[in-house]
Formats: sequence, structure tokens, C-alpha cells
Amino acid sequence: MKSIIDDASTPLLNSVNSPSDLRKLELEQLPKLCEEIREFLISHLSVNPGHFASSMGAVDIIVALHYVFNTPDDRLVWDVGHQAYAHKILTGRRDAFATQRTLGGISGFPNPMESPYDTFVAGHAGNSISAALGMAIADMATPGAEKRKTVAIVGDASISGGLAFEGLNNASNNPNNLLIILNDNDMSIDGNVGALHSYLSDLTTSAGYNRLRNKMAGYFRRKGILTEQRKRAIIRFNNSIKSLISRKQNIFEGLNIRYFGPFDGHDVIKIVKVLQEIKDMEGPRILHLCTVKGKGYQKAEENPTVWHAPGKFDPETGERFCGGSDGNPPLWQEVFGETLTELAKADDRVMGITAAMPTGTSLCNLLNEMPRRAFDVGISEGHAVTFAGGLAAAGKRPFVAIYSSFLQRAYDNIIHDVAIQGLPVTFCIDRAGIVGEDGVTHHGLFDIAYLRCVPLINIACPADEETMRNLMHTALSLDAPLAIRYPRGRATTPDWKSPMKDISPGKGRPVIKRDGAKTAILTLGPVLASAREAVSRLDAEGILADIYDMIWVKPLDTALLTEIAGRYDHIVTVEDGAVIGGFGSAVNDFLKENGFVIAVTNLGVRDEWIGHGAVDELKSICGYDTDGIMKAVTRNPKNSI
Amino acid sequence: MKSIIDDASTPLLNSVNSPSDLRKLELEQLPKLCEEIREFLISHLSVNPGHFASSMGAVDIIVALHYVFNTPDDRLVWDVGHQAYAHKILTGRRDAFATQRTLGGISGFPNPMESPYDTFVAGHAGNSISAALGMAIADMATPGAEKRKTVAIVGDASISGGLAFEGLNNASNNPNNLLIILNDNDMSIDGNVGALHSYLSDLTTSAGYNRLRNKMAGYFRRKGILTEQRKRAIIRFNNSIKSLISRKQNIFEGLNIRYFGPFDGHDVIKIVKVLQEIKDMEGPRILHLCTVKGKGYQKAEENPTVWHAPGKFDPETGERFCGGSDGNPPLWQEVFGETLTELAKADDRVMGITAAMPTGTSLCNLLNEMPRRAFDVGISEGHAVTFAGGLAAAGKRPFVAIYSSFLQRAYDNIIHDVAIQGLPVTFCIDRAGIVGEDGVTHHGLFDIAYLRCVPLINIACPADEETMRNLMHTALSLDAPLAIRYPRGRATTPDWKSPMKDISPGKGRPVIKRDGAKTAILTLGPVLASAREAVSRLDAEGILADIYDMIWVKPLDTALLTEIAGRYDHIVTVEDGAVIGGFGSAVNDFLKENGFVIAVTNLGVRDEWIGHGAVDELKSICGYDTDGIMKAVTRNPKNSI
Repeated sequence: MKSIIDDASTPLLNSVNSPSDLRKLELEQLPKLCEEIREFLISHLSVNPGHFASSMGAVDIIVALHYVFNTPDDRLVWDVGHQAYAHKILTGRRDAFATQRTLGGISGFPNPMESPYDTFVAGHAGNSISAALGMAIADMATPGAEKRKTVAIVGDASISGGLAFEGLNNASNNPNNLLIILNDNDMSIDGNVGALHSYLSDLTTSAGYNRLRNKMAGYFRRKGILTEQRKRAIIRFNNSIKSLISRKQNIFEGLNIRYFGPFDGHDVIKIVKVLQEIKDMEGPRILHLCTVKGKGYQKAEENPTVWHAPGKFDPETGERFCGGSDGNPPLWQEVFGETLTELAKADDRVMGITAAMPTGTSLCNLLNEMPRRAFDVGISEGHAVTFAGGLAAAGKRPFVAIYSSFLQRAYDNIIHDVAIQGLPVTFCIDRAGIVGEDGVTHHGLFDIAYLRCVPLINIACPADEETMRNLMHTALSLDAPLAIRYPRGRATTPDWKSPMKDISPGKGRPVIKRDGAKTAILTLGPVLASAREAVSRLDAEGILADIYDMIWVKPLDTALLTEIAGRYDHIVTVEDGAVIGGFGSAVNDFLKENGFVIAVTNLGVRDEWIGHGAVDELKSICGYDTDGIMKAVTRNPKNSI
Repeated sequence: MKSIIDDASTPLLNSVNSPSDLRKLELEQLPKLCEEIREFLISHLSVNPGHFASSMGAVDIIVALHYVFNTPDDRLVWDVGHQAYAHKILTGRRDAFATQRTLGGISGFPNPMESPYDTFVAGHAGNSISAALGMAIADMATPGAEKRKTVAIVGDASISGGLAFEGLNNASNNPNNLLIILNDNDMSIDGNVGALHSYLSDLTTSAGYNRLRNKMAGYFRRKGILTEQRKRAIIRFNNSIKSLISRKQNIFEGLNIRYFGPFDGHDVIKIVKVLQEIKDMEGPRILHLCTVKGKGYQKAEENPTVWHAPGKFDPETGERFCGGSDGNPPLWQEVFGETLTELAKADDRVMGITAAMPTGTSLCNLLNEMPRRAFDVGISEGHAVTFAGGLAAAGKRPFVAIYSSFLQRAYDNIIHDVAIQGLPVTFCIDRAGIVGEDGVTHHGLFDIAYLRCVPLINIACPADEETMRNLMHTALSLDAPLAIRYPRGRATTPDWKSPMKDISPGKGRPVIKRDGAKTAILTLGPVLASAREAVSRLDAEGILADIYDMIWVKPLDTALLTEIAGRYDHIVTVEDGAVIGGFGSAVNDFLKENGFVIAVTNLGVRDEWIGHGAVDELKSICGYDTDGIMKAVTRNPKNSI
């Protein structure tokens, strides 16, 4: 297996240390540069895993953009920035690329703190149009900046979300020169859904249009009237033809945004020429470029979902080194996915919903087995939750599986469309807690805090598969919303398919309880394992600490807490999430309001943004790994933290 | 001035006690019924204020819907339910209508707890399509319910929001018979904005289309071929003609939703006929009906923004009884609006943004004076915040004015597009706290809890105009996001335009501090006034309590808190918001983590949903009015709450 690429195989790329170097190249050299970037990506990502297929697909667009626009003075605004690896490579981060997504290295998404070429955070889909519109309008109002260009680069999956639509709907309200690049690879992370998707695909494949366009272009060329100054008019003319004969109609033009395309998003020379034509036009414009996810690596082109983030692989053979799951405990998401299918088979009220993450959440299990009972609504978290509210209002028992940080998109929907009505929607909050390499935009730290203040919601966090399954089973008899949060990664038990039963909301359990222990460690969820290890190591030092697995943040087990407050000198709370407003705060509130005088130490993520790195590294930094728990137990609780 | 209508003037309405009574009427009687409903609305709303103009506009649609559909078995799903007064009147709540929006009376919005005819909560715009789609799909999967109909009634302002677009984009993904009524009155609460709006208006006024349609219809009639069975085909045909010749194109058809219209939304007989034609068709459909906001009351038709919620008025003359503001303190929103204009005139980085509430937030002040520095983005709270992030990233100082409960829509945008980057966006959170008559969907209770867990955000709450102005001034020199929350209603000082100065983040102030006081009341915001009154009354009883106006929730004034914890036996926190995760929790966390042993009582909204009523009534029920504060001070802090 080849290791990181040796310099000699990318001579052209080696000469490009910044976009200004790139702009010195001849137009004809760009295809070769694109090829070298792809070689670089294959070599690097086979060893240091990352987002592969979308990065490969966007190479030509990125080269063309930096070639035509005067970055960083002109601004590129990425949407879901994991497509933008080539952008990082071209903007001074080629040598640092091997450190990507590791602790202290460069991040996997654009990051304004990292580079002046990264203009905005781009972890959650659909924000680029709104953000770029803000920049474009700010420039219009800033003396000397009126000529700066702003370009939003958005995928076809992102553009189907509500936020992107709001951006499009506002793009023509005020004078601005925003250019939107629609990178249309006919895919989100999984296959695409939604009417806009089929609309785009019709637009692209409209055979009548393409035939006519080619005919007209040929005619103009033969007549010798395809002069430089006429090209602009012809692009517009093409556009009108397309509108006229396309079976469907142009939504973007309906929103007062001039539409150009579709063009081949891998023909870098063509893209450069089109960009040069339209870059100085006034008013909002959209350029529709069709790309292939995984372009340049056959295995990825054939199966882009698997190759979205393939892990390590052999660049020669395409063999992926997945590690296999034989004998390992299941992924938490698999416990969710398989348990949901079991429940759905036994109870016809059960339905499953995901927002563009069928593979990531394992809802694909139900989608495959009972396709009429499972829904992938695309990148539309708000709709996912309100739709679930509608299902529940009509008697169903929907389970909504969304990553914690993406569920922030649906916060009002949770409150207004579910909780106010006390509807029995179950939120299966995946990727809750530190997620590791995806970093600051993807950690799921706030869900407990933002849900705990909402009346009527139950919130639980299982430490093991059996509890997870029992919680999901319990959801079917609760007449209220329930949030079940669980992290990225593997659970605890290889043989996990226990029979399910209902459990009581608001009941925690003692895990280790011994005479003479002075400290009680209260855990929420899988951090129980770290607490167990801490206690076992403390035992060896002769320090006794007990453990309680609280399971429920809301309702809180106040009877158990009362007992604990009377029994120990010191409580340590441990959670994989923000301490402010979280589980620790819930314990503090209870103790304070009820007049218990007992020292408390709250472990979890403090009030700061956490970057990328391995999960264990980050938990250690945040101080709630095994060592952190040991330290908390042994500190003198009379001292302030 | 006429009081509540006497029964004799609405004989037909008096005979309709339920939709089944309505369905016994002859079609020809419906216009008279609509007229009587309007008389009823005018009489009632002139005395018991409510949402007037939109309710008047939707009368004919509501009568037609209940006439054609078998409610409540068939489901009507309202969007922004204050248009649905006629629906309440027709569904058994005519006699209770006088109690609307008052404590213990019926609510001003549809409420499933109130009536089986109210199928879903409808306080925040744009949720009806997603919720109704859930119901429609649930019915398809429920044996015996396959024939139930579901109708979403959405306004043209609501449909421009991201959530509605996500619903539309998903409407054709799965088999369903959803019917969407687009009640197009060319208005949101204020004038409408956005490209979709102008698109709809083009669709409606397309002269060519209307001419041709009339010509064709006349031709068919003359030829005697306009038979009943052909009407359906003709509606579809009309539609195709419109698509063909409309200058713009049909966005809904582009999203695979069959489009019918536009038709006159005040021709109740016509609406009934069209509904009968299309109700049994399969697949998602949209019916576009054009209405006039305030229809049937000339003053309201002429000025629908003023008559959105006009307060009491004389039904004969249209004179509104506003009470006038002479000599009164300003509304909090006016302090925001006028101060922002002052700041904008002095600093060209200042920009203002609202989401469809220029009048409600008083951003109209800046919109009028400096239109290029102010933006009304329509019902698009997510876009509003991300757009502000873009402005800030390009060096501007945007102030985003959104009501607390609507800002829930932009939660992820606040986190991902502003706070992660530490961008200097100022959130002016209007209607924070109990709002009164609008009730459960509109109270702004969660903003402290959902913002406090987010790193880098500053959160403050002024008790008076001077502090409000100083906070807004301070925003210009902070290099971080700032949230300033303030309530509905009037501030404190008639002569309020003090010179502005910067104040220190995280600095509270003692208001009353005396030797011998055992209790410290820590207030946040305008609840200070209730604390002052409580202290003055307690003084008379010989009980000394001091007051601290903390101003900042984040950063918390930990130096002042440390001093307070050492000085008193008991702390009472008071806030106009949810206690869980709020200001009280922040104080608890600080005290607990730092080992202070002092009794604390947290006042604010407990963990339950609060309905509608006057602000003072609701605060009294929640226990944080003057009496509640007195009780908290005088309770024995050793007892548990």
C-alpha cells in the first residue's frame, strides 16, 4: 500500500502555494492540476481518513473559482465545508493537510480562525446563501469594498433545506452581486430526496433542451457570430430556450435569480470561461454545475454513500479497512436502527423519520424493511419534527432520529409543534456529546440544556444497549415527548438483543454502593464506563466512591437524589455535554431549591468551544474522562473548583 | 358606540351551532352567513380586542371549508391561527367568543385541548403543511382512515418561510391527498417581502392569463360544453394555460404539487364549487385563493397593518381607542427602534434586521429613516440570523430584532453562524417573558436557558431605558455576540432619551442595600419594579430585604454574587422567564460550584405551560409578582419549597 504521496508525483501542485500562484498558470494547465489534486486527496485520505467522495467531486470547481476570483479579497463561502479539501490544499494548507481533523491540526471544515480564505463556518448545510448575501450587501455599503465579489458554493442537497430557500427568497430584495454556485452531484450524503431534487434532475437531463442548445451553438459557430462580446447574450439566450422548452419551469428565475447552466462541473476550462463571463454581472445569479461525487476514483463514483467518509483504504485496490464489527459491541446507531424495526414490526403505530441521514442514523434498516413506515425528508430537520408532530396527532408513534447538533435546527418545532401539545414523539438524538474529528460544529453538547427547560419533555440517556432498548419500548406507552440521547461510536455489549420491557420514567439506579464511601458519582449515559474505571482505580488507592446511573435528566430521580444527598459528603456529576443548563445544573437546582448542604462537582464540557480531535483526547481535555473523574473525587470538596 | 352584537342581527349565524348545522344550509345562504359572521367579528372585536384584519379576510374560506369537508373527521390545519376566528365561531365557541384571550376563556389561536376541530397548534407561521402532511400520511397507513381528508390553510407570508418550503418540498415524496389552501392576501402582518411574494403577485395579476381564461370560459359556455363532469378537466386546462403564458412559471408545479387558481377568496359559492371539484382528487394539491385583509370593514381594508390587532374601536366610526402614549413611558420596542436609528446615524457599521415584524419591533423607524441600513427578511428567522452573521463577518454591526419565542426558529443559526465564530451580532429579543393574551405559543420564556449554554454569548436584560440604551451602545465595542432581552409593553421613564455610554459586561448593581437585611432579592430586568414594591411593603412590616439589579446573566457578576453570598442568609432570584436553565439556575450553579452555603429561592416560570390572560394575572399565577416576591422573602428558607 502506498503511503502519503511523494512530492515528485504532483509537480504542478507543488508549485502552487497560494491562489496567486494558481492564477499564474495557463488555463490549459488546470486539468493537470485538478488531476494532481485528486492524486493528493487519494493518497492522503487513504491514510488519514476524511470526507472523500464530495471532496473529489468539487476539485474542478474549486480550481476554477480560485483561478477566476481574487481570493481572499473576493470571498468564497462554502456550504457543508467537507467538499472544500481542495480549497484548503490551494490556500496554504497543503503541508498541514496530513494533520487534518487531528488534535492541534487543521480542521476538516472551513474555519475563519484558521485561514483568511475561510470566510464562514460551514458545518451545517444550507447557510452559505444567507451568509454570503450578508457579506455581499455589507460590501455594497462599505466605501472601497463595492467591487469585492462574494460566491456561495452550495450542494443540491443543501439547497433543498428551508434555510437555503429563505436565502434564495431574499437574494433579490436588495441590490447585490451575489453569485451562487450550485454543485449538483445528485446526492446528499445518502441519496437525495424531495421534489426540488427531481426538479433539478429534470432540469439537467432535459434532452430537448440539450439537443436544441447544441444545435443553436453549432449554428452560431458556423455563421461565425460567436464573438466574445456575444457570448454573454448567448448564455442568457440558452437560458430562455431552456425555460421555454423544459417540461418543468425554472424555480430560480421565479425567485428573481438569474440562472445559468447546467454545465459540466468537471470541465475546469469551461467553468473558468463561464465564470469569467458572469462574474461582473450585476444582481444575484446562480450557476448550475453538474458533478459526480467521488469523481476520479472509480470505486467512489460507483458507491458514493459508502465513500462519503470511507475511513482508511488501499488507494490501489480500493479495499477499505473498516476493522469489522465481529465480536465488537454494536454502534449506538445500530441499536437504534434495529430496535426500531423490531418495534415497528410489533406495533403498527411506529414510524421512523430521518433528515438526510438514513445511513448515519441506521434508519436505513427500517427504510429497507418497511419503506412505507420510514421517511427520509432530506436536510429539513424542522420539517422532520413538525411532520412527526402531525403523525403523532393522528395517532402514530414517530421516532425522529437526528444528530444532536443538527436537531438545533428544529428547536422551535420541538417546542411549538410537539411539546406544547404533549405529543408522543420520540427524539432519538444521535451523536450526542463529543463527536471527535468533525469538531466544533458537530459536537452535540447543548441538547440537554435546550430541552430541559421545555415543559412536558422527558429526557433520558442510556448507559447500555438494554436500557436503550427499554427506553425505546417505554416510548410506546408514554403520552408525552421523550428524548433519548446517545453518542457516536460503539455501545458496550456484543450480545445485545435483550428482550424489551417498560421502565419507569425518572428512576435511576445505584451501580456501586458501599458502606464508608464519602463520594457519590452520578453519571448520565455511557460515561458510566469511565466512572467504573475511576472507581476501580480509586479502590486500589483505598478511596471509596460509589456510582449511580441516573438514566433520566427529566424527570430527575428526586427520591434517589434525596437519599444520596443524605448519605454522602460530595457529589460528582458526569455528563457528555455542556454543564451549563445540563444534567449537572439539574442536580444543582434540585439540591439548592431543597436546601441540601452538600458539595458538588460538575464534570462535563465547560463554557467554551471544543475543537476537533479523537473523542478520548477531547474528553481528557474537558476533564471528564477516567482521570478527570478521579481528580474530582479526590479533590477537597471544600475548595472551590 | 354599539356594544356586543344583539342576537337579532345575526339570525342565520344563530342557527349554526356546529359545522353539521352549517352543512344543512343551502349554498345560496352562505354569502349571508359570511356577512353575519363579519358583523359578529366587528361587534365583538371592537370591545374585546383581538386579531381583526386577517380574521375578516378568511371568513369566506372558512365557511366554504366547513361546508365542503366533514369536520372534525376531516381535518383543517391552520397556519398562524389568528386568521381562524370564524372557525371558532362555527365550531361551538360562538357564545364563548367574548371570553377569547382572557384568563380562563378560549384562546386566540387554535388549540387542540380546546376543541376537536382544532387539530394542531398554530401560533408560529409555516408549520401547517408539515403537520398536515404527517396527518395525511398517518391516515393512509391507518385502516379505516384512508378516506379522511386533511387541509392545510396557509397564508402567503407563511409560505415564504423555510419550514413551509421544506413541507412543500416533501409533499410529493409519499402518496397522500393533502390539500393546501393558499390564503393570499398579499400581506404578512406588515407588507410582504421576498421574491416568492412578487412571484405570487405576478401569478395573480397576470393580465394575459386572466384575459385568456375569461375568453376560454365564455367560449365553453357559449358552446354549451361546460358540463359538471367537464369542470375538473377545465380547471386543469386553465392551469396549463396559465403556466404556458405566465411570464413567470409555476413553482408549485415544479415541486410536483398540482396548482389550482388563483380564484377570488371572497366568492364563497365559487370556493365551495372549486373545493367540491378537487377534494377527492389524489395527490398533493394547492388551491390559490386571493383575499383582502380586513375584508368587509373599509378602514381595515385601507390600512391592514394598523388593523392587524387594532385594540378597541368604535364599530360605527372606526375610531380606535389607543389610550395614547402622551406622558407615558415608551414601549420597550420603541426604545429599541429609536435608539437603533440614533446609533446608525452615528456609526455606519450599524444595520437592523427584522423577520416580518417591522412594526412590532419598531425596526420601521430605521427602515423609514435609512432604508439601505435596515432589512425586513419576512418570516425567515433562520435567514435573518445567518444573514446578520454574514454582515458581521464583513465588518458590520447588525442588530437583529426578533420576538423571543420566534427566535427559537433561529437557534442553530445563533450557535453555528454567529456564536462559534464569536461574531458581533446583537440580538434584540423583544417580547421576552410573559406576553399575556397571545398565550402559550407566544410567551418568551426559554431564551435565557437556550442561550446561556452557548459559549461566547453575552446575555443582558435591562430594567430601564437608560440601561437598555447603554447596552445597545456597548454592543458596538464588544467583539462577541450580545443578547439583550426585553418584554412586551411599556418601560419605566417618560423622559427616557439619556445620553449613551458603554457599560461593563458582567457588572450588576446594588439598588437597595441596608444594614440588617437578611435577604437579597436578585432581579433581572423590569421585574425590578415588583421587587421595589415588595421591599417597600415589607419595610412597612419591619422586614428588611435588599435588592440587586444583576443586569447580566452572562457573564454573571461573580464578584457581586460572592459578596452577596457572604452578607445574607437568603437569596431570592426573580426573572420573567423559565427558571430551569435560566437566571436562577445560573446563580444556583455558581453558588453550588463554589461551595457557598446559603438558602436560595428561584422565582420565575416553573416547569409548565402557561396559557393566556393579562400579563399581571399570569405573573401572579406564576408567583413572581409583588405578592410572590413578598412571600418568597418571608418564607423560612430552611423549609424546602
